[in-house]
Amino acid sequence: MPATSSSATFLATLGPSGTFSELAAREVLRLPQFTKAPPTISFYSSLSRTLQAIPEQAGIAVVPLENIVEGIVSPVVDSFLKQPLQIIAEVAIPVRFSVVANHPQPDVIFAQFVAQGQCSDWLSQHDIEVISTASNTAALAQLQATTQAAAAIIPEHLLAAAEPNASAADWAWVEHDVTDYAHNVTRFVAVQQPQPLAAPDHSIRYKSSIVIVDDADHPGLLLEHLQAFAVHQINLLALVSRPTGQRFGHYHFFIEFEGHLQHPRVQAALSAIELRNQVIQLGSYEFSS
Amino acid sequence: MPATSSSATFLATLGPSGTFSELAAREVLRLPQFTKAPPTISFYSSLSRTLQAIPEQAGIAVVPLENIVEGIVSPVVDSFLKQPLQIIAEVAIPVRFSVVANHPQPDVIFAQFVAQGQCSDWLSQHDIEVISTASNTAALAQLQATTQAAAAIIPEHLLAAAEPNASAADWAWVEHDVTDYAHNVTRFVAVQQPQPLAAPDHSIRYKSSIVIVDDADHPGLLLEHLQAFAVHQINLLALVSRPTGQRFGHYHFFIEFEGHLQHPRVQAALSAIELRNQVIQLGSYEFSS
Amino acid sequence: MPATSSSATFLATLGPSGTFSELAAREVLRLPQFTKAPPTISFYSSLSRTLQAIPEQAGIAVVPLENIVEGIVSPVVDSFLKQPLQIIAEVAIPVRFSVVANHPQPDVIFAQFVAQGQCSDWLSQHDIEVISTASNTAALAQLQATTQAAAAIIPEHLLAAAEPNASAADWAWVEHDVTDYAHNVTRFVAVQQPQPLAAPDHSIRYKSSIVIVDDADHPGLLLEHLQAFAVHQINLLALVSRPTGQRFGHYHFFIEFEGHLQHPRVQAALSAIELRNQVIQLGSYEFSS
Amino acid sequence: MPATSSSATFLATLGPSGTFSELAAREVLRLPQFTKAPPTISFYSSLSRTLQAIPEQAGIAVVPLENIVEGIVSPVVDSFLKQPLQIIAEVAIPVRFSVVANHPQPDVIFAQFVAQGQCSDWLSQHDIEVISTASNTAALAQLQATTQAAAAIIPEHLLAAAEPNASAADWAWVEHDVTDYAHNVTRFVAVQQPQPLAAPDHSIRYKSSIVIVDDADHPGLLLEHLQAFAVHQINLLALVSRPTGQRFGHYHFFIEFEGHLQHPRVQAALSAIELRNQVIQLGSYEFSS
Repeated sequence: MPATSSSATFLATLGPSGTFSELAAREVLRLPQFTKAPPTISFYSSLSRTLQAIPEQAGIAVVPLENIVEGIVSPVVDSFLKQPLQIIAEVAIPVRFSVVANHPQPDVIFAQFVAQGQCSDWLSQHDIEVISTASNTAALAQLQATTQAAAAIIPEHLLAAAEPNASAADWAWVEHDVTDYAHNVTRFVAVQQPQPLAAPDHSIRYKSSIVIVDDADHPGLLLEHLQAFAVHQINLLALVSRPTGQRFGHYHFFIEFEGHLQHPRVQAALSAIELRNQVIQLGSYEFSS
Repeated sequence: MPATSSSATFLATLGPSGTFSELAAREVLRLPQFTKAPPTISFYSSLSRTLQAIPEQAGIAVVPLENIVEGIVSPVVDSFLKQPLQIIAEVAIPVRFSVVANHPQPDVIFAQFVAQGQCSDWLSQHDIEVISTASNTAALAQLQATTQAAAAIIPEHLLAAAEPNASAADWAWVEHDVTDYAHNVTRFVAVQQPQPLAAPDHSIRYKSSIVIVDDADHPGLLLEHLQAFAVHQINLLALVSRPTGQRFGHYHFFIEFEGHLQHPRVQAALSAIELRNQVIQLGSYEFSS
Repeated sequence: MPATSSSATFLATLGPSGTFSELAAREVLRLPQFTKAPPTISFYSSLSRTLQAIPEQAGIAVVPLENIVEGIVSPVVDSFLKQPLQIIAEVAIPVRFSVVANHPQPDVIFAQFVAQGQCSDWLSQHDIEVISTASNTAALAQLQATTQAAAAIIPEHLLAAAEPNASAADWAWVEHDVTDYAHNVTRFVAVQQPQPLAAPDHSIRYKSSIVIVDDADHPGLLLEHLQAFAVHQINLLALVSRPTGQRFGHYHFFIEFEGHLQHPRVQAALSAIELRNQVIQLGSYEFSS
Repeated sequence: MPATSSSATFLATLGPSGTFSELAAREVLRLPQFTKAPPTISFYSSLSRTLQAIPEQAGIAVVPLENIVEGIVSPVVDSFLKQPLQIIAEVAIPVRFSVVANHPQPDVIFAQFVAQGQCSDWLSQHDIEVISTASNTAALAQLQATTQAAAAIIPEHLLAAAEPNASAADWAWVEHDVTDYAHNVTRFVAVQQPQPLAAPDHSIRYKSSIVIVDDADHPGLLLEHLQAFAVHQINLLALVSRPTGQRFGHYHFFIEFEGHLQHPRVQAALSAIELRNQVIQLGSYEFSS
């Protein structure tokens, strides 16, 4: 089903408002192609629902693709295998978490599942009971609602907006940069329903994304695929295996590389890969600076 | 610090009791080497704490390594890079979830984060608000404690034990096999502090696990590593990239292959890989049947 | 300089008349493209002079390319690097030698250099002084001219024509099949000045010939070139190194493979090779049956 | 049959005296291991007879292995497949030819077959009838014996000894450096009956020679063999295909590489190659300077 004129006016992203996804979506809307008639952001409760909004409810979706520490966001890559999607842009969003507390010695700390992983060092150094929340925004909301001595791990950008307290100074305890890695960053991508690729602009440094679908039963295929990139001198940027779900050790491969899908060297490499496996071409887009 | 005689009497696994991890731990205790003096199972609140119990609090830990659908369990692989560990056995545990409800039309459903992913099809077909819980056991406990019209996604093996209701028939709604994939299974591994490998027993079909550490800045190393396995005719069983956390596209590789670390062909292949990168040898153990 | 209308009426081959080269030339003239207006065969004294007759003195040349036992005919491959040539056809000529003698116990045996190699077993079993001749025809001529008790190694097809003796029975000693290998055969090729390739005929099984020119100083290039053929699933038929003459261990590679130079897979493989080295395309032609 | 105490006192090389082979043999005798009790040089009429002198008639043989222009000396490599031989040393001999004539305008020129190839440019620029001779020494002898206006292509080192003329000045025409390539050089090797290798001396830069025997019918084996060397970071020095004589396109490969056959990396690479094909180890020896 094509995007309708009305769906084109919406951009889908993971809610609720206030999370890193909204930050990424606003960054995408600053790209030249969106400044003229920016779509309205609408929030969805899960990554798969966000992507399934395309094409009928939204013309575009913005989802996290890869965190520098946690690696690829599996549900997004798995969606590439389930529905036709095209990546048209990427933005890199720094991931910074803070701890806020209503008491100097909180008994519990609210934190979303992924945030718990990102701040595992801090959590292991503090003996506070962790309460899982559905989102980062929810962690803050639950802290604000509780009467317990409590804390929350929240994205740094939420701190300013964190009512009822007028400012950070009003919290009993605020600690910044509680993530395990100082330069933590997540790449988000803007995706749409696949459309014909525009010819490459030679002033732009492109990256391209594909999924090699494991539809053959031939051992050692990855080696042959990597050789196809190597013989055509194409630099790999990402290489992630995703289980087929059929047997252990059988994988689809999500691969990113330098260059545009319409470059002759890329087409030669893909023609070799396609002798052995199906390839899903996900798009070519500019490197985020 | 070596395992003490007292720590050796404990087996660490992810709690609380009743989850798949306990099931796996009990399966491990059925292996010949544990039947004589089985250690006591002690539960930990996270995978990293479970593994950090070795060697001082427990002689052995049982953790999930790979789910056939979700893929590798990243925190476990990441632990292999942080602390010395040796895999000594694997067991495969079927993953079956059921939905139970106290009302035919529940308003909310309690579910652990990973269980939500495993049952995403069912959840997307039912418009019920999802409440994240810290564990599968907690999902059941919160259902049993609530006065709301509620449901929970719980491991099938918890159903029998699900009090206060005497049997499945006492629930308002029970639905089995709600996972997205019929043959969902998770491989758990038993790990210990590294010890010298026993010589291979030629009647046993071994697999071995390693991590290739990205400590060089040479593009295309994976290709050369895969060639090392190929020229020595070693079959790969698993290949998973884990981000180094330093730069996008830089990976450590968790690799499993057929054969024992002391087989000459394996040693020849590893000697080639070690010309380029550090290799962490995680152990050789029998295929789970 | 283009072939002139007059040069086009000549076919150059190695003389003198009566050698395997003339046999091959006559076989080439049986190919459909030559039956209408067959060129006249003219003989040259060396392989390089035969090839240098193109384009001014002859429109086509027929030269030996590869003997099944001796391997590639190096001066022919080296000519491919020195002058523009295109292979348009191949024919396979069985190589059978006989020994004829004017006396049952000859003191000397006349034999061309290459024939000596082809019949080295026979020569090592017979203690007769070998006298080198410039050609196989010359071996016979010198035998016929001598008054010594002498023998000659001559191509079997020369025997019938071997005057002054009316028939084989008139010789004092005739022995057939004196080559070391029973199924000895030489592939001859017909070459011309390069012209645009006709589009492949899909009912024909083609082979193609190229030379990869070592104009780069990068170790391990052959490996990368072989990978280019492998990733594009092109079967190699011949692989011969020829020294560049500059340093030991630096080679040009003469390579033959299945398929036509205009097949997309072949063009993809060659595009990869040309990222690293210059390629001389020598032509695509039907397998000799 | 082992070398006898008497055969050990002889060194076999290609005759007659005065050719490049004698020059190489004298160079070999200067190596430390031969200075104490140098064997006597005995000459043989062909390369195969020279090599077959081992072990019964000679303890050692010196034969040309590779010319920088002409490439490998095929009969020598083919001998490696026919009889057990071990390379123990190499020497590099410059190849310089001169033309001498008894008349300023010779009608004929005497030249050995290989010398004709080495001096093909000079020959193609001079329209003189070429008469093939059995050896370079024979070319000079036939010139000295003839009453015709004649010339000969002879090794430069033969010129001084070229009687009846007292010096170069007495010839009607002397021209030096008539080879096609200025830095023409031939590598000769000293070979013996195989014996256990001495342990490598770490102060010596070794090269090793092997033949990979095509005894399997698996396409693409060379690619896998080259990968074995590449993954173990072994530099190739020579790579030459020799036809098996059974089918076109089936080759044995003569390969030389840096390192000693007892180095662990070399042994690892060879263990991979031996999974696929038989390997004949020809020896490890010092690079000629």
